[in-house]
Amino acid sequence: MSEKIVIIGGVAAGPKVAARARRLSPQAEITIVERGRLISYAGCGIPFYLSGQIKDYNELFTTPYGVKRDEQFFLTERDIRVLTGTEATAVDRRKKEVTVVDLNTGKESVLPYDKLVLATGSVPVEPPFAGINLKGVHRLNHPEDVRKIMEEIEQVGDVVVIGAGMIGMEAVDALARRNIFVTVVELQEQILPGMLDADLAAVLKARLEERGVEFRLGEKVRRLEGDEAGRVKQVVTDGGALDADLVIIAVGVRPNVELAKAAGLAIGETGAISVNEYLQTSDPDIYALGDCVENLHLVSRRKVYIPLASTAARQGRVAGDNVVGGKSKFPGVLGTVIVKLMNQNAGRTGLGEEQARAAGFAVSVTTIGSFDRTHYYPEKGRILLKLITEAGTGRILGAQALGEGDVVKRIDVLACAITSGANVEDLANLDLGYAPPFNTPIDPLQHGVNTVRNKMQGIAKGINAAELQAKLAGGDDFVLLDVRTQPQYRAQHIEDERTLLIPIGELRERIGEIPRDREIVVLCAIGSRSYEAQRILEGAGLKNIRFLEGGLLGWPYELD
Amino acid sequence: MSEKIVIIGGVAAGPKVAARARRLSPQAEITIVERGRLISYAGCGIPFYLSGQIKDYNELFTTPYGVKRDEQFFLTERDIRVLTGTEATAVDRRKKEVTVVDLNTGKESVLPYDKLVLATGSVPVEPPFAGINLKGVHRLNHPEDVRKIMEEIEQVGDVVVIGAGMIGMEAVDALARRNIFVTVVELQEQILPGMLDADLAAVLKARLEERGVEFRLGEKVRRLEGDEAGRVKQVVTDGGALDADLVIIAVGVRPNVELAKAAGLAIGETGAISVNEYLQTSDPDIYALGDCVENLHLVSRRKVYIPLASTAARQGRVAGDNVVGGKSKFPGVLGTVIVKLMNQNAGRTGLGEEQARAAGFAVSVTTIGSFDRTHYYPEKGRILLKLITEAGTGRILGAQALGEGDVVKRIDVLACAITSGANVEDLANLDLGYAPPFNTPIDPLQHGVNTVRNKMQGIAKGINAAELQAKLAGGDDFVLLDVRTQPQYRAQHIEDERTLLIPIGELRERIGEIPRDREIVVLCAIGSRSYEAQRILEGAGLKNIRFLEGGLLGWPYELD
Repeated sequence: MSEKIVIIGGVAAGPKVAARARRLSPQAEITIVERGRLISYAGCGIPFYLSGQIKDYNELFTTPYGVKRDEQFFLTERDIRVLTGTEATAVDRRKKEVTVVDLNTGKESVLPYDKLVLATGSVPVEPPFAGINLKGVHRLNHPEDVRKIMEEIEQVGDVVVIGAGMIGMEAVDALARRNIFVTVVELQEQILPGMLDADLAAVLKARLEERGVEFRLGEKVRRLEGDEAGRVKQVVTDGGALDADLVIIAVGVRPNVELAKAAGLAIGETGAISVNEYLQTSDPDIYALGDCVENLHLVSRRKVYIPLASTAARQGRVAGDNVVGGKSKFPGVLGTVIVKLMNQNAGRTGLGEEQARAAGFAVSVTTIGSFDRTHYYPEKGRILLKLITEAGTGRILGAQALGEGDVVKRIDVLACAITSGANVEDLANLDLGYAPPFNTPIDPLQHGVNTVRNKMQGIAKGINAAELQAKLAGGDDFVLLDVRTQPQYRAQHIEDERTLLIPIGELRERIGEIPRDREIVVLCAIGSRSYEAQRILEGAGLKNIRFLEGGLLGWPYELD
Repeated sequence: MSEKIVIIGGVAAGPKVAARARRLSPQAEITIVERGRLISYAGCGIPFYLSGQIKDYNELFTTPYGVKRDEQFFLTERDIRVLTGTEATAVDRRKKEVTVVDLNTGKESVLPYDKLVLATGSVPVEPPFAGINLKGVHRLNHPEDVRKIMEEIEQVGDVVVIGAGMIGMEAVDALARRNIFVTVVELQEQILPGMLDADLAAVLKARLEERGVEFRLGEKVRRLEGDEAGRVKQVVTDGGALDADLVIIAVGVRPNVELAKAAGLAIGETGAISVNEYLQTSDPDIYALGDCVENLHLVSRRKVYIPLASTAARQGRVAGDNVVGGKSKFPGVLGTVIVKLMNQNAGRTGLGEEQARAAGFAVSVTTIGSFDRTHYYPEKGRILLKLITEAGTGRILGAQALGEGDVVKRIDVLACAITSGANVEDLANLDLGYAPPFNTPIDPLQHGVNTVRNKMQGIAKGINAAELQAKLAGGDDFVLLDVRTQPQYRAQHIEDERTLLIPIGELRERIGEIPRDREIVVLCAIGSRSYEAQRILEGAGLKNIRFLEGGLLGWPYELD
């Protein structure tokens, strides 16, 4: 008798489980139950349709070879039955049956299962303010959402995005490509709070502001107000009112766990479904995966809720193996997230600085600036890289990076390194590929780990942007030694009377100009020359010298 | 008393040692001895000046902040003495002295050392044919070489490159950017013999041929012939004569070990200087690094000679530490090489297929095709990825890849994985970054390791392009089942009467059309649908079915 597999959820995770199970078991009876009308759509592609990079709405629903992934496709190509417009309303674990309702007819029926898979995904968080049903107020979670936005996009003037998380920021990017520059309102004091540490987020915010985006951080939306026609007119926050004739609400998602809860399955501390490494719920015949489950973080060893399409896809294979009798494991996640926002690439993997402290690690933080390619190669870009390491051992706990340069490659290599438990010594001589179109002879990430090593050895002594800013604002008595060239200084600098400009090439001969009894902070463009200067000054017997890590590249504050 | 450090060699490795040693030791007396007039130039940038991507010759000699790296720079900024035009002619290890000759004046002098560093680099191999001193015959190893080529480049008609190694192929790429399409003569039967396995090299060659490059592989150059004015006119090979009014000879380099040999230092089995993990030669007070030394291969555990600027740079830091009393280690190399050639990116890391066999491994080879980004994202490219794994354990031994897509990121991640001893299980759930502008939800390299796992489990059964070509040519009785769409087939296919075209979507219903007693090879564009088809056919009880790994993307032979 053939195994009956019922999968609840027809987007991303669910179809992946079904496809893998089918490849392993030609006999299994596989049924996908999906509440909506659309299945297996490219949810991550939605912002790229908004931006115009994807021209045809149908591309969100087709295979790479141009075939529509609808019910018929699953049936004829994969022998998988898909019930769309069908909601699973209850699970009887004793009888091993799922009750489903045809949302069109209201007709209820029962699907018996041997293995049940919950791929119920996430749902948008309901915002705690009024006016969300006004015309012109949208989300960006579902293909239907973007379709509705596109109907209005040519007519709108002022766009406000509420929420500076991933989806909100992808909306910002997409609209900028249409030359629509939005205002973003975010409750927290930084952009991308779930992704970047506050320091890197501040730098990224500054880069996006330079290109026309406005941010209202730390502001709480009180209500949306409409005109007589019922169309949104203003976003009212605790900081004032903003004109808006189109609003995108992106205040996050939460795991869709209602069915699992009602079935008495264990829910984890994060609020998502709890699964073991085989992706089994507390009922061994019921699996769960994707945006509805929590995962083990491989560095903190704590449970986290980080819903990502990549996690769902990898888990699909694991669950697909196991529902047909396999024993595949899903070890956990690093919370790797990457994003392209206007001309900036950004990424993170592993633990953030505060997360690492909260997880009980003794934390050391190092920030470097670098070109991603040889400086003479025309298509180069800069990278600001922050490494979070364990003090003493140099173990890599996490990394974050941003810039026009190829950030993502370094984040992926670091994800691999963190998974293997690598420390800075292990990475320093890693044989990474080099050619001028792709890299510098010493990869930026190796420049980063070498800086960590220099700091561990007491050779390099850094100060970060926030610390320097506090010293400047606090009226400390110190010398701010800028070692860049004159033209570089003139183009952009920190305006402060404590500044002394001595280009690095003149430092040895002009060393007498530097007061020997004062604290010195050296700065340059990306942090290389200032470190060199620190060593030169120490070599000449000066003391109490630090260099600005990451240089002005990592400086999120005002420059003249 | 301050330590005397003498470094022989003023390009790449040598200056790096000097700079690191200076940062660690303000007191050390550091002297660099360089035979040539130019120091610390960007050797890897030479082809990019030829291509016109670097506009200003001086960029090959400047720091990222625009200062010329000449003798004065080293002296004033780094307190390092550089003697250019000065040749080291002998080392007296007992007295710890180097004899040097000023090549301008012929004056000999002696430099005492506490630590000596040999960074003597490599020298071009002398070609075994006549005519290399004709006008219009050049190399591409030194900035002066490219300067001479540039003087002639506007006037030339037929360009021949001798040697299809890295430098030769970079010349091909550079000239193509000037719309000069060359003929390449190579003694071996493949391009990039030191870098790519023959199968991937054949695919890359086909891609470059499509764009106008001509190759004469397996041909030996007999002589270069000139006209009355002494300018090169023809390249005569054992396959005939080629018109040429400009010839670039790129037949490889060899380690420059004469001084080391004369000093009685141990030379390794590869012909390069033998060093331990501290980069010490057989004389503990003499260090060597860069293109003149051999290295331990981290997978084969054998000594290899793979001269690369990245290795030299990493070793510079290690040697710089150790000459001032440190104990830094250089563990070895993976032979990671990457290159951009016209619209193709290519890379390799770890062992090649034959190298892995020669090193005694039980080898399994898997090739996959993939897009590097979501198929709906406009700027996507394809990747052909070959994984060399250990049979049984699935340990990654090496990887090679090429395509328009982002090959390099995957090679770097694999370099990290190989270094940590990872197997395919470890990589399958690696939390790599995903966003549509950068990746597919399951990274191509994970698609690759999953394919290896499927093969190890006996689920996937592959055939490679060479095997299929042999079957086609050998007149075997089998069915060549193409499961692509009709338009895809019409655009390009293998013309063979044994072909049966059934698009994957129709396969289940048309399964009766397939003879049940015949061997079947399934093919598609990149290998995904054909694997799916293999599973469908096996599910229906058919036997003896294999799919073409990498699909037509990895097919280097003729297509109609």
